[in-house]
Amino acid sequence: MTNYPVHIRTTDAAGTLAEVIAAAPGGTTLADAAQKAGVHLNQPCGGQGRCGRCAVIVDDPGWRDTGGRSSAVRRRSTIRLSAEDVAAGYALACQTVVEGECWITVPPQEAIERRLVSRKAAARIEVPFDYDPRRHQTVQRYFLRLEPPDLSDQTDDWSRVCRALAQQGVQNPRAALPVLQDLGRVLRGENSADGHEPWQVTAVVALDSWDQPAGPPEVLALLPGDQTDHNLGAAIDIGTTTVTVWVVDLQSGQVIAQAADYNGQIARGEDIISRIIYTKKNGQLAELQQLVVETINRLLKTACERAGATPDEIFKLSIAGNTTMMHLLLAIPPESIRLTPYIPAVNHVPTLHAGAPGLAAHPQAVVDCLPGVASYVGADITAGVLSSHMDEAADLTLFIDVGTNGETVLGNADWLITCACSAGPAFEGAGVEHGMRATVGAIEEVWINSATYEPAYRVIGREGERPRGICGSGLLSLLAEMFISGVVDKRGNLNQTLSPGPDGRRRVREGEHGPEYVVAWAEETTHGHDIALTKVDIDNLMRAKAAIYAGFTVMAQSVGVNLSDVSRMLIGGSFGQYINVEKAIQIGLLPDLPAPPGSASPWDRFQFLGNTAIRGAYMALLRRDVRAHLTDIAGMMTYLELSADNSFYDAFTSALFLPHTDAAQFPTVQAALAERAGRD
Amino acid sequence: MTNYPVHIRTTDAAGTLAEVIAAAPGGTTLADAAQKAGVHLNQPCGGQGRCGRCAVIVDDPGWRDTGGRSSAVRRRSTIRLSAEDVAAGYALACQTVVEGECWITVPPQEAIERRLVSRKAAARIEVPFDYDPRRHQTVQRYFLRLEPPDLSDQTDDWSRVCRALAQQGVQNPRAALPVLQDLGRVLRGENSADGHEPWQVTAVVALDSWDQPAGPPEVLALLPGDQTDHNLGAAIDIGTTTVTVWVVDLQSGQVIAQAADYNGQIARGEDIISRIIYTKKNGQLAELQQLVVETINRLLKTACERAGATPDEIFKLSIAGNTTMMHLLLAIPPESIRLTPYIPAVNHVPTLHAGAPGLAAHPQAVVDCLPGVASYVGADITAGVLSSHMDEAADLTLFIDVGTNGETVLGNADWLITCACSAGPAFEGAGVEHGMRATVGAIEEVWINSATYEPAYRVIGREGERPRGICGSGLLSLLAEMFISGVVDKRGNLNQTLSPGPDGRRRVREGEHGPEYVVAWAEETTHGHDIALTKVDIDNLMRAKAAIYAGFTVMAQSVGVNLSDVSRMLIGGSFGQYINVEKAIQIGLLPDLPAPPGSASPWDRFQFLGNTAIRGAYMALLRRDVRAHLTDIAGMMTYLELSADNSFYDAFTSALFLPHTDAAQFPTVQAALAERAGRD
Repeated sequence: MTNYPVHIRTTDAAGTLAEVIAAAPGGTTLADAAQKAGVHLNQPCGGQGRCGRCAVIVDDPGWRDTGGRSSAVRRRSTIRLSAEDVAAGYALACQTVVEGECWITVPPQEAIERRLVSRKAAARIEVPFDYDPRRHQTVQRYFLRLEPPDLSDQTDDWSRVCRALAQQGVQNPRAALPVLQDLGRVLRGENSADGHEPWQVTAVVALDSWDQPAGPPEVLALLPGDQTDHNLGAAIDIGTTTVTVWVVDLQSGQVIAQAADYNGQIARGEDIISRIIYTKKNGQLAELQQLVVETINRLLKTACERAGATPDEIFKLSIAGNTTMMHLLLAIPPESIRLTPYIPAVNHVPTLHAGAPGLAAHPQAVVDCLPGVASYVGADITAGVLSSHMDEAADLTLFIDVGTNGETVLGNADWLITCACSAGPAFEGAGVEHGMRATVGAIEEVWINSATYEPAYRVIGREGERPRGICGSGLLSLLAEMFISGVVDKRGNLNQTLSPGPDGRRRVREGEHGPEYVVAWAEETTHGHDIALTKVDIDNLMRAKAAIYAGFTVMAQSVGVNLSDVSRMLIGGSFGQYINVEKAIQIGLLPDLPAPPGSASPWDRFQFLGNTAIRGAYMALLRRDVRAHLTDIAGMMTYLELSADNSFYDAFTSALFLPHTDAAQFPTVQAALAERAGRD
Repeated sequence: MTNYPVHIRTTDAAGTLAEVIAAAPGGTTLADAAQKAGVHLNQPCGGQGRCGRCAVIVDDPGWRDTGGRSSAVRRRSTIRLSAEDVAAGYALACQTVVEGECWITVPPQEAIERRLVSRKAAARIEVPFDYDPRRHQTVQRYFLRLEPPDLSDQTDDWSRVCRALAQQGVQNPRAALPVLQDLGRVLRGENSADGHEPWQVTAVVALDSWDQPAGPPEVLALLPGDQTDHNLGAAIDIGTTTVTVWVVDLQSGQVIAQAADYNGQIARGEDIISRIIYTKKNGQLAELQQLVVETINRLLKTACERAGATPDEIFKLSIAGNTTMMHLLLAIPPESIRLTPYIPAVNHVPTLHAGAPGLAAHPQAVVDCLPGVASYVGADITAGVLSSHMDEAADLTLFIDVGTNGETVLGNADWLITCACSAGPAFEGAGVEHGMRATVGAIEEVWINSATYEPAYRVIGREGERPRGICGSGLLSLLAEMFISGVVDKRGNLNQTLSPGPDGRRRVREGEHGPEYVVAWAEETTHGHDIALTKVDIDNLMRAKAAIYAGFTVMAQSVGVNLSDVSRMLIGGSFGQYINVEKAIQIGLLPDLPAPPGSASPWDRFQFLGNTAIRGAYMALLRRDVRAHLTDIAGMMTYLELSADNSFYDAFTSALFLPHTDAAQFPTVQAALAERAGRD
């Protein structure tokens, strides 16, 4: 096949130009050619032509006068580009293929915004249970004083170590090659700058694991001198959007440092499906693995610095994450997760060493990828259930991780049923015209005056921060207020008969994409454009909330209980933390549970747990019995595949109203509507 | 530190010149600078300045007129170079350091000679015992017909495999990451070109090992379709000089192909000690590992080709080798083996995967490095004992691997004692003026006429091959003949009063290095130089044989038996095969055992076993019980450290005679001498 030169001009934010030339066979996409030349383009949609972020300028006399250069490329799709863009030479790099020598200019790439996810300073985490490191911890340190060898005792180095370990109760340990390679020098004190005594070492040992049958103990490392006074581990939650790391002192059990950041894979796909599609191209699975490993490693370094430690002191890592994230971390192809019948390669990953995926801990550190249940109910959910203790409760509990996949668990100490609701990313601000992540400039809460229909809103950021868009909790709040105030009806249709506001402008108007409600006028914003919620957005949000509520309904039906029997509703996930329960019930996202007996507040049944996955990983990191229990939880959870359930579609259709076709299920909402009607 | 340019001109055999420039800090040896620039110099002595093979020409007006180039180098040693060499600009690259910009010319490097070690066509090896692959073999193949997943059974791929394996009796297997990474595609038939049915695969499983406690079974690979009809393994012996590979059909137990070649490490040190010294420099341990891995891989490929197979079909390797070879294979620093108190890092290496050292088998293949006893009694000897069955004998057996280390084992079914005799490499032709390896042109046997003192000899090679030097068996034969014919006395002194030969030339004469006996005159040889044995050579040979015999003596004394009680003498090692027992006894290398009762030949007690190490590795490869027994043998062998034994020096001194100071220990030699005296 002929290779054509692809001239790639890059510009950085400062306007500096550089040109590289890639040799690409005909049919290669510009995105692949750029990647080959080391120029990385943002492809949040995974290269499907859906997001428009990989747009580049093709230099061609047909589109621009660039002095006789003629680019031979073919556009497969120009979706996401306006006619003006196309006329100006823009093309989607992921949808445009090389057909001859060509010249392209890559505009400065938008940096993925980064911020620490928690808006509060990291709270001190209490050790959640009785913790005795000698009894509960699988990774132990032993100080060994070895007899130096002489001609009358020529026992080999490794047997000498084993003999000393046996005296401390560790029988027949194994060691991987790197330990043996380092052995002689460590024992003889040749590896330490600080001149410790030879033949005095600390063995770091992974004792029996929770696997059945348990393997022999494994010596992970031998360190010079007595280093038994510290022992570090890390709990990690790999979210599709955010990665969280807790560094833990395994002696006291305390979390000594925390760090969180966006998952570096976001640039290659915002959601799970985009990332799975992205892995289908050669080498891109390895790229996604590297991106998340880099994120984790940066966080481990940051957290260790804060704790005055270094990552290679970490000898145990417990990792939670959804099933796709786990596959990508381990470079296990995730294709079958996306395709019916939705099968993961592995739910229970055997333990491995940190060096295998390249995690920044000691290379021999034990990596425990926590067990998942199914393609869309992963270790983040089993860990969440563990940390919620719902598996120990006598009363019926409903647990939900509000997010793209809407993983839901219903049950008690006797049984657990789980499903994933495919809510889509609307509540994360995606697929909504003015949606954005919960960062500075996002409208996070809205109030609408029922008389004037004029809104008031709160923006994330400093006092007086101007809005740029609306985040998930803001969308939820806005939709609820629009419904209760009568801006939309129960079908989500906008009331186009509202009178103009005090300045004569209409809040509800016909916009470019149909009817919309303006939350903020251009002059109030940072970017000088009106911020509105469109009918299309409303339909997206209603589909998302209907999917989740239908999940609740079908799951409850399948086990013969009523949602109103639920004693406790647990809300996990980082988005979950910012939900206003009253408003979530008003749009029919959460069930309208009666107030518990004797309670003043009707919301006492609702509990926000925050990031339950990282908490569960932390618990599993500390105690081997808790870790074993986590495997039991995973085994106990029955997975309900909604796409195979005939009643799901009916339940979904019934939930595509505000709050629901069956208004009786939402008595407090009925009351609020009645109150407004009374005022009107 | 300043970097100086080192200009390195290389010439190949065809005279082609090339120049590379290395940047080297002051003090770097020319050998290191050359290595850095990718020019590899032969250093059979390991860079100690002892062999002279790394000589290069330093271009410098002080030594040669090369048009004003001035080389700034300093020679630390010119041993091994004649005054003429030095005047001509020669310098030892390993002993000459850079002190400024310099120019060197590297002469064409002598290729290390290669030949297949066995002069005979590979003999068919019988399966040495009852072998039932299902019962005895630890690596098994299982054909699995899996139920394809659907929405009503969303079991993950790995659990599905485990479920099918459990039906065949394999419980709770583990798998390493590469197996999981390949899993989904293999199960779905996406990895095979020949369109096998999806969901039908062959699992290659390593069952319980011989380690205590046994770990869980491990799935090494999943192969498309039914591939249970074959199962390959390999037995490997890594000798300091020669590497031998047998490829084995694990179904029938038969050796289906053999290959052998020189160990590629020879170019970096002829003997163990040189190689250990060579590893001390940065990166050179990795280099030695790579060299032996390359040798093994070449042999595995060759042998597999002969068997119509490919190396990645091999899923189990059993490896014998001396302790240093085992350390070098695994890149475990071997320094402490060389230094008192002579401690290896590890005698019992845990099993590993072939991919770890980069062996050319399936990357997940189980590598079983067989157990050794001590620094100088390695897995080659334990495997030798296993294959000799001496550990099962009621009668007293003496086993020796004749070679540099002279490993010796004495014992029976109840006890085994072992030692290493540090014989040095004299019997391998090293340290002897005209010594060479047992290859074409080597004198391998000599006869001396007791009347005329004229020799006759046999040369390895075709009919009429001319000699170039003397190999080990030739040296042994020559010394025995010289002693029995009276050319040397019992102290090894040459008889300088012998009359001249028929052509008037004296066979015993004063040579450059003292008295010597001429075996072949210049005109008989390939290279036109007399081939002689010098007094210095004789002393070297006598020290070698005295060390071995003293080892026998001290070992027997230490357990309170007499050498004359030995019922059977087993001789192993590739050199051992070519020993003439009568002559070995005549010089006092082997004990003069009485003929067994009723035997016609006095040599019936002696048995040549050839390469016992590879045989032992082959046996351990086949049967798990035999492998477990090998660990028992290693545990049963008591190691006697001769350097710590006060009686060794006396025994050695007593043995520094031909055949021994105590002539009564050698009755048949006394008889032969008496016969000659009678003739005289």
